[in-house]
Amino acid sequence: MAESEKPCNLHVDYVIRYSFGNAEQSQAIAQLEKLLQSLAQVGLQAEVRQGDESSLLVFVRASEKRLKRAVYRSRVRDWLYGIRNSEPTSSSSTETQTEAERLRVVHQMITHSNEEGGAGITPNHGEWKDVTALFPLHDIETNKTWMRDWSKKTFLSDDDLDQIRNKFGESVGFYFSFLQSYFRFLIFPAVFGFSCWFLLGGFSLIYTAINCLWCIIFVEYWKRQEVDLSCRWETKNVSVVRTSRREFKPEKVVTDEGTGEKLGVFPATKRMQRQLLQIPFALLAAIALGAIIATCFAIEIFISELYNGPLKTYLIFIPTILVSALVPTMSAILTSIATKLNDYENHETKDAYDVALTQKVFVINFITSYLPIFLTAFVYVPFASLIVPYLDVFHLTVRPFVSKEHAVAKQSHFQIDPARLRNQVIYFTVTAQIVGFAMETIVPYIKQHALRKYKKYNKERNGKLERNGDKESPERPVIVFDDPVEEVQFLTRVRNEVELSDYDVTDDLREMCIQFGYLALFSPTWPLVPLSFFVNNWVELRSDFFKICMEFRRPVPLRTDSIGPWLDSLGFLSWVGSITSAALVYMFSGNAQHGPNGEPTEIKGWALLLTIFFSEHLYLIVRYVVRAAMARIEPPNSRKERADRYLMRKRYLESISVESDERDDDEELASQSEAPEISRTSLEDDARKASLHGADPAARFWLHQRGWTESAQVGAGIIQAQPVRGNVKKQQ
Amino acid sequence: MAESEKPCNLHVDYVIRYSFGNAEQSQAIAQLEKLLQSLAQVGLQAEVRQGDESSLLVFVRASEKRLKRAVYRSRVRDWLYGIRNSEPTSSSSTETQTEAERLRVVHQMITHSNEEGGAGITPNHGEWKDVTALFPLHDIETNKTWMRDWSKKTFLSDDDLDQIRNKFGESVGFYFSFLQSYFRFLIFPAVFGFSCWFLLGGFSLIYTAINCLWCIIFVEYWKRQEVDLSCRWETKNVSVVRTSRREFKPEKVVTDEGTGEKLGVFPATKRMQRQLLQIPFALLAAIALGAIIATCFAIEIFISELYNGPLKTYLIFIPTILVSALVPTMSAILTSIATKLNDYENHETKDAYDVALTQKVFVINFITSYLPIFLTAFVYVPFASLIVPYLDVFHLTVRPFVSKEHAVAKQSHFQIDPARLRNQVIYFTVTAQIVGFAMETIVPYIKQHALRKYKKYNKERNGKLERNGDKESPERPVIVFDDPVEEVQFLTRVRNEVELSDYDVTDDLREMCIQFGYLALFSPTWPLVPLSFFVNNWVELRSDFFKICMEFRRPVPLRTDSIGPWLDSLGFLSWVGSITSAALVYMFSGNAQHGPNGEPTEIKGWALLLTIFFSEHLYLIVRYVVRAAMARIEPPNSRKERADRYLMRKRYLESISVESDERDDDEELASQSEAPEISRTSLEDDARKASLHGADPAARFWLHQRGWTESAQVGAGIIQAQPVRGNVKKQQ
Repeated sequence: MAESEKPCNLHVDYVIRYSFGNAEQSQAIAQLEKLLQSLAQVGLQAEVRQGDESSLLVFVRASEKRLKRAVYRSRVRDWLYGIRNSEPTSSSSTETQTEAERLRVVHQMITHSNEEGGAGITPNHGEWKDVTALFPLHDIETNKTWMRDWSKKTFLSDDDLDQIRNKFGESVGFYFSFLQSYFRFLIFPAVFGFSCWFLLGGFSLIYTAINCLWCIIFVEYWKRQEVDLSCRWETKNVSVVRTSRREFKPEKVVTDEGTGEKLGVFPATKRMQRQLLQIPFALLAAIALGAIIATCFAIEIFISELYNGPLKTYLIFIPTILVSALVPTMSAILTSIATKLNDYENHETKDAYDVALTQKVFVINFITSYLPIFLTAFVYVPFASLIVPYLDVFHLTVRPFVSKEHAVAKQSHFQIDPARLRNQVIYFTVTAQIVGFAMETIVPYIKQHALRKYKKYNKERNGKLERNGDKESPERPVIVFDDPVEEVQFLTRVRNEVELSDYDVTDDLREMCIQFGYLALFSPTWPLVPLSFFVNNWVELRSDFFKICMEFRRPVPLRTDSIGPWLDSLGFLSWVGSITSAALVYMFSGNAQHGPNGEPTEIKGWALLLTIFFSEHLYLIVRYVVRAAMARIEPPNSRKERADRYLMRKRYLESISVESDERDDDEELASQSEAPEISRTSLEDDARKASLHGADPAARFWLHQRGWTESAQVGAGIIQAQPVRGNVKKQQ
Repeated sequence: MAESEKPCNLHVDYVIRYSFGNAEQSQAIAQLEKLLQSLAQVGLQAEVRQGDESSLLVFVRASEKRLKRAVYRSRVRDWLYGIRNSEPTSSSSTETQTEAERLRVVHQMITHSNEEGGAGITPNHGEWKDVTALFPLHDIETNKTWMRDWSKKTFLSDDDLDQIRNKFGESVGFYFSFLQSYFRFLIFPAVFGFSCWFLLGGFSLIYTAINCLWCIIFVEYWKRQEVDLSCRWETKNVSVVRTSRREFKPEKVVTDEGTGEKLGVFPATKRMQRQLLQIPFALLAAIALGAIIATCFAIEIFISELYNGPLKTYLIFIPTILVSALVPTMSAILTSIATKLNDYENHETKDAYDVALTQKVFVINFITSYLPIFLTAFVYVPFASLIVPYLDVFHLTVRPFVSKEHAVAKQSHFQIDPARLRNQVIYFTVTAQIVGFAMETIVPYIKQHALRKYKKYNKERNGKLERNGDKESPERPVIVFDDPVEEVQFLTRVRNEVELSDYDVTDDLREMCIQFGYLALFSPTWPLVPLSFFVNNWVELRSDFFKICMEFRRPVPLRTDSIGPWLDSLGFLSWVGSITSAALVYMFSGNAQHGPNGEPTEIKGWALLLTIFFSEHLYLIVRYVVRAAMARIEPPNSRKERADRYLMRKRYLESISVESDERDDDEELASQSEAPEISRTSLEDDARKASLHGADPAARFWLHQRGWTESAQVGAGIIQAQPVRGNVKKQQ
């Protein structure tokens, strides 16, 4: 391992923050002792340093010998679960070890229970609730080099992705791979979309069809790519090794008949009953968010298109402000309800928990992200002239400002704004993406720096005060500066990193998934959508890496063999896209120039539904075909994996057959030398033997012919006895 | 094995029919010698007897020793491919062996290539084209017992199914299991359908919804059941062990880089191009069959509802006769085209070939089975009054018989026959099932017996003639009666069995699948459909067993872990059912009493499409939920399988950790006794060491605290140095 040569991070594997502020001093000391002892028992070396006023930093590193054993154990487990193909030998632990594997195994040594050979330390949980952080340190040099390199490249190479995986583990590696594949795939629709926009304008049938096809191919391609990557990174089937959730509350403990283990059991039926709560939850989310969005939408339309009274210039911002304030609040409330629901569902494994939560969060995201556009496209446009008059009824309070005649006049020649849909799509696919980027990357970075400056300033002021005022704790300034001179810089950095929050790859995946949704669902409206995303994702790829490096603690490497439930979300969005795209094209393509005039009778219900029906089923058929075609093409790493597996089996089978063949060859010789002897024995002899075996007809049946030569003689006799008619005919 | 105690079939494992009629005598004898020698080389004992005038019967049995070795090899292979969980030991070949396993392994010994350790005999192919049959013998006693027992039972027990599997192999076992599950599942819709029919009549919304739900549950249940059965029968993942097709023509031979094997390669893209021919094929099938069916349908409607001229009583049979004659002919032609197409696709494995063929045949079956009803429901009923007048134009030739006025009068008050749809469904679900049963079971049985009688009569007559006339081959009568007296009965039976044809489980599966289709697609029309099928399938289960035992050679046991592509067909039919059912209910339920009056304007296009849209998507959502729910419930055998696997892994891991722990415990003790010593060394000592290590800051970092006790002391110092504010507050 090249990285291990230069002592980055002073060989520190993990940093533990031990907060002692909440416990009595004696208890805190006892618990600290227990912590250090537990670490020492599994072969982890520790160094204690001051954290801040109420915490210690425990630096942990694994002894090479114990680490080797742990790596071996982990690899054997992988082999048994079919994740590895080759059985690891003890000596093979000299195999190249990635940083991610090292960190993962050390993490297991720290967190696994004693029975599993770990120290049993569970941060923020149970008796270890004072262990408030456990994280590896960033490799600052490498991070900087990569950021510099990537800013000059268009695409990351497979090598770059491998290195991300080696540093941050497979789960982050999968995210960047996905982002990279998605980015690369966007080239085609970006170019094609631009051409369509230039030549055909919006709502072009050709663009829509190609876009749907592209979505199918991308989703199916990524499915294959996932498998291939999991072969490349040796994490295939890793989801089989399920880690149980600590929070799981078993209903009863049952001794498994098969394995003799005591297992906490929670009946699946009971969980399913609890999961039924998802239905009212989804309804609640739809109604709560729907009401907010629809109301604001209605207000906006009323103000912008009907209302013409005083203060219009200012009032027009009301709905935007309302949406910006209410939707995130409601989302947060719903997310917390979703989390509670998910906790209540009491999942046994972390994976199951995450999948279930992802599904619930996806419902919220789907509504907040796409409902506004849905309302415009499928409610406002077809039904506006029916609904708009009622808007005024809802807003009687606004009336005083408007002269009655004016409002009525306005209503009568109310005109749908044909650009509204396009503008909304542009807002969500360009403006919102830029705002999102700023909110998730730039703002936190500025905030972080400001906070650090403020803290430093505060500390200095405190120091000054204390030097001047001599308060109750004269030691404090001494402690702050107790670091050995040569470690000051290092410890300052660690103290900064410990302040950061933990990175969760799910948020970034969700963002990409939602983005893909706009493309699948609404891009026929404005074919420049893929181009915008293409540009956006070039930045996204770099800024996400920047974010992980600078704004979060280094993530603990997690293994995974896919992007998880998001793949299903992509498939779902692409499916829904086949419906919405068809509907959009049918509704808008005819009058693309002047926009729909909003008479619902203009849009024929049966024709719209027939369009949707055909589009959806065509989509399903094409997907089936693409899937079947993709399944036939074996990606390179899968092929390699299969070849390895085959070789392993072949070697084993050969070792067996050589062994048994050797044993049997001698017997064979014996029996073969015996056979001619028997065939030489006369028929009378056979008859005698037959009578000896007496009663058993089966034995007699098998004694007629001894050895294959005798059978052949008998057969030849029968053949020769037949008339040669057939042959004669043939020869003639 | 209980069966092996009584010498059923004189211990014969397989019978080979060697036909020598087509080759020269000397060649035939040489090839026979080769056959017998090949068999002997792999340890198979053979006895030759006369078959008929142009064939020999070679009876084969495996020597126990060689069989044991082959069983062991086969089991090791299974273990390597993850089909078995436990590694078989040589001694474990004493494990209970089923008859099916024995026959399967012997079959492998005969047919596998020399490299794989078999005799390399490939019936009907290549140099072994004269080996025209290879089959095991029926176990007549057991078959009779079972048939008697089952006729008294309603349901077969799991034990019965296990026994079928033990006798005939997993593929037949899976068919009977499926049939049994389907039969058992039919109880509910049979009862419910009867109640609905009695209380609500046809086209009831409740019946339709419940029927769709039932279809989903059944298909998903069977999916789980399949997995469970494959665990029970230890055939999980058996499809991974792909047997290559002999007919596969590789385009080029490539040496695999990974494995170093020479592999015949056929590019997947080329195969896909060839598979595109399926589209014109499907169109051709649809047009060819559709034209026949639609024409006959039109003729029938014309004759029965418009025509009123002479000979009507006889003419009415014309379309039925035409359909009965043309549809099977066209199906046969299309099936042969499908087979040719499939051959042309050049599949590498037998499984892939079978799946591809099944798909093609399914298209043909779908059209022949369901198109007539589709035409009635979705063309005749809504559009009859538009189309019927044109029928007369097609049939100008019929006019002379009809008085012009009469025809016109008839046309003007043309009335759709409301009972037509129901009658058609009844025809397909009752009459056609009975006819099918007769055609597939009773008729062949009678034919067989008649044929045997005729042959016997013929032979006797020939014998007489020869005894009287002394023709060119005086030996012939001698050969016919050359059987040893005690074997006459046995050999007669074998000669009868050799005349039978090979059983293919696919045909029976297809029949059931098509039957399920009627239930899913059209049963709302007449809710007694499931009751009819319930009765039919009680008979079917027994008659199919009777058929296998009496009308076919005993099938060679094949392993499988599912019913194959038919499962997908079931899912597809159930999906299409959600569309057709909804459409039927919408179109007919309103006027169930007096039938639709056939005005297409009465049926609102958008409402029909909306009904279909909702029904289909509701179906998909419910299917998703049912699938998710089913996935949570682990069937018993899967659980057992998982427990076994877990135990195996645990044992292995324990063996490793005990081993390495023992080794390391000593080292541990040594290092622990060393640690306190170091911790006792003074800080000055450390400082000296640090200066010794000099330049390396990492080494210095880790030398501050030696042993966990020192770290704890340092930590305690820091904690105690903090002001106790927090604690004081807490204690107050």
